[in-house]
Formats: sequence, structure tokens, C-alpha cells
Amino acid sequence: MPNTPVSVANFYRVNHSKHAVKTVGIFGGGQLGLMLAKAALPLGLRCVFLEDAPDCPARLLGKVYSSEQFDDFAKACDVYTLEFENTPLALAKLIPSDALFPGVEALATAQDRLREKSLFNALNIATTPFVSVACRADLDKALGDIGAPLVLKTSRGGYDGKGQFVLKSKDDADAAWAALGDATKDAPLIAEGFIHFEKEVSIVACRAKNGDIRYYDLAQNTHHQGVLAKTVAPAVVGDEIAAQAQSAAKKILDRFSYVGTLAVEFFVTKQGLIANEIAPRVHNSGHWSIEGAVCSQFENHMRAVAGLPLGDTRLVEPCVMLNVVGQYPDPSAALAIKGAHLHLYDKAERDGRKIGHITLSGKNATELKNATAQAIEILPNRLGLV
Amino acid sequence: MPNTPVSVANFYRVNHSKHAVKTVGIFGGGQLGLMLAKAALPLGLRCVFLEDAPDCPARLLGKVYSSEQFDDFAKACDVYTLEFENTPLALAKLIPSDALFPGVEALATAQDRLREKSLFNALNIATTPFVSVACRADLDKALGDIGAPLVLKTSRGGYDGKGQFVLKSKDDADAAWAALGDATKDAPLIAEGFIHFEKEVSIVACRAKNGDIRYYDLAQNTHHQGVLAKTVAPAVVGDEIAAQAQSAAKKILDRFSYVGTLAVEFFVTKQGLIANEIAPRVHNSGHWSIEGAVCSQFENHMRAVAGLPLGDTRLVEPCVMLNVVGQYPDPSAALAIKGAHLHLYDKAERDGRKIGHITLSGKNATELKNATAQAIEILPNRLGLV
Repeated sequence: MPNTPVSVANFYRVNHSKHAVKTVGIFGGGQLGLMLAKAALPLGLRCVFLEDAPDCPARLLGKVYSSEQFDDFAKACDVYTLEFENTPLALAKLIPSDALFPGVEALATAQDRLREKSLFNALNIATTPFVSVACRADLDKALGDIGAPLVLKTSRGGYDGKGQFVLKSKDDADAAWAALGDATKDAPLIAEGFIHFEKEVSIVACRAKNGDIRYYDLAQNTHHQGVLAKTVAPAVVGDEIAAQAQSAAKKILDRFSYVGTLAVEFFVTKQGLIANEIAPRVHNSGHWSIEGAVCSQFENHMRAVAGLPLGDTRLVEPCVMLNVVGQYPDPSAALAIKGAHLHLYDKAERDGRKIGHITLSGKNATELKNATAQAIEILPNRLGLV
Repeated sequence: MPNTPVSVANFYRVNHSKHAVKTVGIFGGGQLGLMLAKAALPLGLRCVFLEDAPDCPARLLGKVYSSEQFDDFAKACDVYTLEFENTPLALAKLIPSDALFPGVEALATAQDRLREKSLFNALNIATTPFVSVACRADLDKALGDIGAPLVLKTSRGGYDGKGQFVLKSKDDADAAWAALGDATKDAPLIAEGFIHFEKEVSIVACRAKNGDIRYYDLAQNTHHQGVLAKTVAPAVVGDEIAAQAQSAAKKILDRFSYVGTLAVEFFVTKQGLIANEIAPRVHNSGHWSIEGAVCSQFENHMRAVAGLPLGDTRLVEPCVMLNVVGQYPDPSAALAIKGAHLHLYDKAERDGRKIGHITLSGKNATELKNATAQAIEILPNRLGLV
């Protein structure tokens, strides 16, 4: 302990022994970065961002560096993490491997659907049948082996349902190839068997540097045209499903010696859980944890990255999270709803763009249901929810 | 709704109809300002601060104007509020009365103990016996009328137990006068009868522009040498005490047509509740509401000031809040405690200075008790807590 008063200027220097990490560099400056930095603030951590959009949400909480300023960004930070899943691997590789959490291998796997699904299978985590499609002949073979309907996807890039084509029968092969065939110049496509699922769920988990893992309650998701519309936490599933999801998350986290928050999306089918994809970062389906868990996915991620102990992931109250897409609702109308928590990302309105979310929390199931219905009612874009 | 995409630059202009308030000017830039701005952020509100310490905590979340830049500060804001109780009335009066929440009258009353206690009595809220002491003869008269022990206090300024003198008997009159007599040049002192109380409690409540009032659960406070050491929410008191506290808060809020969060501190005595003082702002004894209530005192204050509907004050989980005074604990040790929420204010360490707080939350009473004991253990300054 210092014997003399410590000025703000050298607070961190003096407290270095108490708190080795001061500045966290985040790849990406979107709303996930904003919420990470907000969670980091009271812990004494400061964030800066590598992001080419100077008007990004995260600018509200820390300095934003453009790609051209990468060297300055790198020099400014003690450790690094990411909020943008498509962070260029070439940039990530410039960071010392003992300072980037999660690491390049997890990032590279999440960026490649073929690699991702191969990992699932290697870890005995069930997936749909899938094959690599590098040419038109591969597609025809997939239609023969797996059969229609078939989903053809780019293996890299693409998110929120973009870069996908559903083949209802062999007759759609030409159209599918016309839409996505060009992408094989960069990387093979992936063809996946179509899934008849009962519900979509996801698990968000966090792993600390010492290997400690904490799991949030399984959440149930509703997508609309590939975009997450609603998350309900906890999901209504049996203990066995929840245990399967935790087991899968644990295998993946341990496989990478992962540090930070990770999400795994699954389909619940009659045959059990089918893993769909991972996100090597905080996840939209975990936003409810800000209000609904003792320690949010954002705070736990920052704790992990900074080498701090993880917080309690216990669910405090059931929550429903609704995404605000394209247009903002009237804040007064949103805040008049009992148990409503409004999160605006300070982004410009644009069709299909996630610009905020509303979380409804409440102990009483009827009240929570009513609040959800009221919130859907005031959303300019209801994303198919009724 | 706009038909064309809205750039970030004119987001607020276009959304003006949805959200009339954009920038909130806050008098003061301490930790209360920091926590207010943090709560305001996801609502789409931005804060700026009038504060002469450029290294103040609130600088992390908004522009800080010095007193000399008052005009620029005033021009930058749509509405105004305060986090510093001793905001000069002369400055507050420069703001149009329909844009400052709470208003000058509430502020002036809270800054003057005589005026404050007279208000309590006028509203039939019980206080200790008290008299104005403008000269030495008044002090002798007070010792005769109220009797010893007696507490002599400056009526203005002073906080956290500063500017007070306890007279155990008439023999202490000379020493008391020597300590505080000079202050009568500015304003009369106040002499108050000594109180034998069972516990100290406080209520935090928030009033909206439309007169709607929300009350947080009564909290129990432990002070050490005039500084708040611990708050337990909810306080263990009977329904009657809680109702008395709400009634007193309501009278005060309505009396001022108050807008925003207010705290009232009470002593619980055998004769019932005795009001001690009000704080016309968010209050240290309400910090637990960040994690422990559906909507925190900070968010509700900002909602009220911005003319938005109030949020639910319902207690989500029991909490214990411990102040971090003088020196920071090891963040790793703090965060290793189950249900611990660490709030560092980014202030330099200094004896007696509030530089952070730790809130413990938990459903299980035994776990909460254990967590509290562990947290006290790691505090460099335990403020008399064991």
C-alpha cells in the first residue's frame, strides 16, 4: 500500500500491483464494444477500439483508432480482445498470443463454417450432415448424399442470414450456384442438411485464464429472416438439454484454452441438441444478462480478459430481450412498460440494422408476458413477432 | 417516422419528437455524476458536467466545463440537474426554473439545516428538538431549554460529519463555541437535542414531472465518524416504519413539486422515526439499487430529469453496500467474492475520501452474510466494520 496520497495521474501505476491490466484494446467498436467498455468502467479498466467507422457506438466510451492507426492502437493497450467476429486474422496475428483473448485459433475457427463444424464433430458434438462444396460437382454430390432440402452457405463471411441459399430440391441447384458459386474462388462453400427443429437455443459461457468456466442459463431464440428477434431466458428445456449445451460449451472452451465469453447456438430437435455455430465473443442472445444475471456476459468477458476472477452467472430474474432493428421506438413508450430496460446504441437508423434492444425483466410470469407484448407493440419493426 | 435513413449526426434532431431531451447538464462531476451518466447512456441521453476538477470521475463519460465556462455549459444542455449538494445557489438561479431539476428551493432547503428541519416540522415530520444559535447566548439558552447532550452544527456546508461538535455537558460550551462560533458570521448554527437511536435508515424516492412517485426499499445505514460505511437493503424494520418513511418522502417531494431522486435520512428511535436530513440528489445509501433494484436510483433520476416515465423500484435481491474509503482494495480479491460488484471511481487515494464502493448481492442470506464479511476483510479501511 502506498504511504503517500496517489494522484489520478499515477493511480494506475501505483495500483499496478493490485490490477495489472489497465487498458484493453478491442477489435471492433460496435454496440458490443460499447457494452463491454461500460461493464469495464467500474472495474477500473479502460477500453480503446480499432474500428474504421469514427461514429461507431463505442466512441462514447473510449478512443477509436482506425486501421491505419493500428500501431498506435497496439501500443496503447495491455491486453486485447474483440467484439467483431470478422476481425481480420492478419491483424489479430500481429498481437502477441499471450495478450489476445480469445486467441487466433478460436477466431479462425469461428470465421470458417467448415472448420467450425469439423471441430464440433471432432469433439463429439452433434451437427447436421455437412460437406465441403468447392465446385458445382460437389454440390450435385451433396444433393445426392445428404439430399434436399439443403442449405448452401459461404464458409466465411456472412452473418444474420446473409450468404445463404436454401435448395428445396435438386431443381434449385442452378439458382443456388448462380447465387453463391462465385464465392468458391475465396473458399469452399458448405452444404448442410436441412434441420427440422423445435426451437433454437444458445448458451453463453465464460472461461477465465485459470480454466474456471461459468455458464449462463440456456436462452431460447427466435430469428426472423436470419436476424435475432427475441431471446427468452431461461429457455424452457429439460435438464438434459441444458447439460448437453454446457458440455458442448466446455469442450469447445477447453479445446482452445479459451479466455473470455463464447456463445454456442443450437437447434433443439427430436434427436437432441444439434450445434449450429459459435461466436467467439459476447453475443446478442446474452444481452439479457445485463439485468438478468448477477454478473453480465460483458463484465465477465472483461474480467476474463483482464485476468480477474469471474463473476456469478446465476439468473436473477427471468428476462425477454427484443432487438430494435431499423428504427427506434419512442423512448417514453418503451420506458413506460413495467420492467423495461432500454438500450439504444447511438447508431443511425437503417433498414435491417441492429440499433438497440429492450430487455424486459420480471419475477411474475404473467407480468413479463404482458410487458413483452407491450414492447413488441411499440417496436417500429416487429421482426415477425406477435 | 423518417422515410430516409438518418445519419448519426442528425439522429437526435430526427428523434427529437421521440425524445425531446438530448443533453443533460449536471452540476458537479464526482462519482454520482459518473454513475448518473452511465445510467443515462443507454437511454440515449448524454451528460456534460460543471466541475472545477478536470480529473473528476465524470470526465470519463462527458465533457467537463469549469465554472469559468459556465455560459458554454449552459448553452450545451437541454435540461440541468445536480450531483453536488453544495452547488452554489447563485449559479443554479441562472438556469431557467423550468429546466433545472430539482429546483432552487429544494436545493436551498437542503443546504441549510435550520430551513430543512423547519420544513420537516411544517410537514409534521418528527425531528429532534432544535434551535437556531446566532450567538453565544443562544447556545447557553439551548443548553437550558434542550439540555445536554447537545449537537452544535453549522447550518450550511459541512458533510460526512464535518462542522459538528457534540456537547456532553454545559462544560463543553466554551470549546464548542471556540470550534464553531466563527461560523455564525455566515449563518446561524443549529443546536439539536442528542438522539438515542436504534438504527439509522434512509429512503430513496424519485418523483417524475407528472407527479408519479416511486420509492425504493428502506435501507439501513452504518456510519463511522460521520462517513457512511455500510448500507443494507432492505432494512429490517416493521411495515409501519417503512410507511412512515414513504409518507415523509412524499410530503417533501410534493412540497417542492420535486423532479428527480431524493434521499431522506432518519433515525429509528423508541418513539418512531426522526428525520435527520434530506439530500436533493442520488444518494450513497441508494448505490445498492444499481444491482439490487429493477431500475436504479441513477436511471430513475435521469428518466425524471429528462421527462421520461419512471422505472420499477422493486428490490430484485437483498444487497449490502460497503464504501471504499481512502485506499483501494485488490480488485482481484474483491471480485473473487461471490456476488460482489466492484465500483471504482477513478479517484486518487486520499485519507477519508470515498473512492469506490462494493455491493454484495445474493438471494441466500447466509451467502450474503459471508460475502459481506469477506468484503470487509479485504478493505484497507474498514470504517469500524467487523
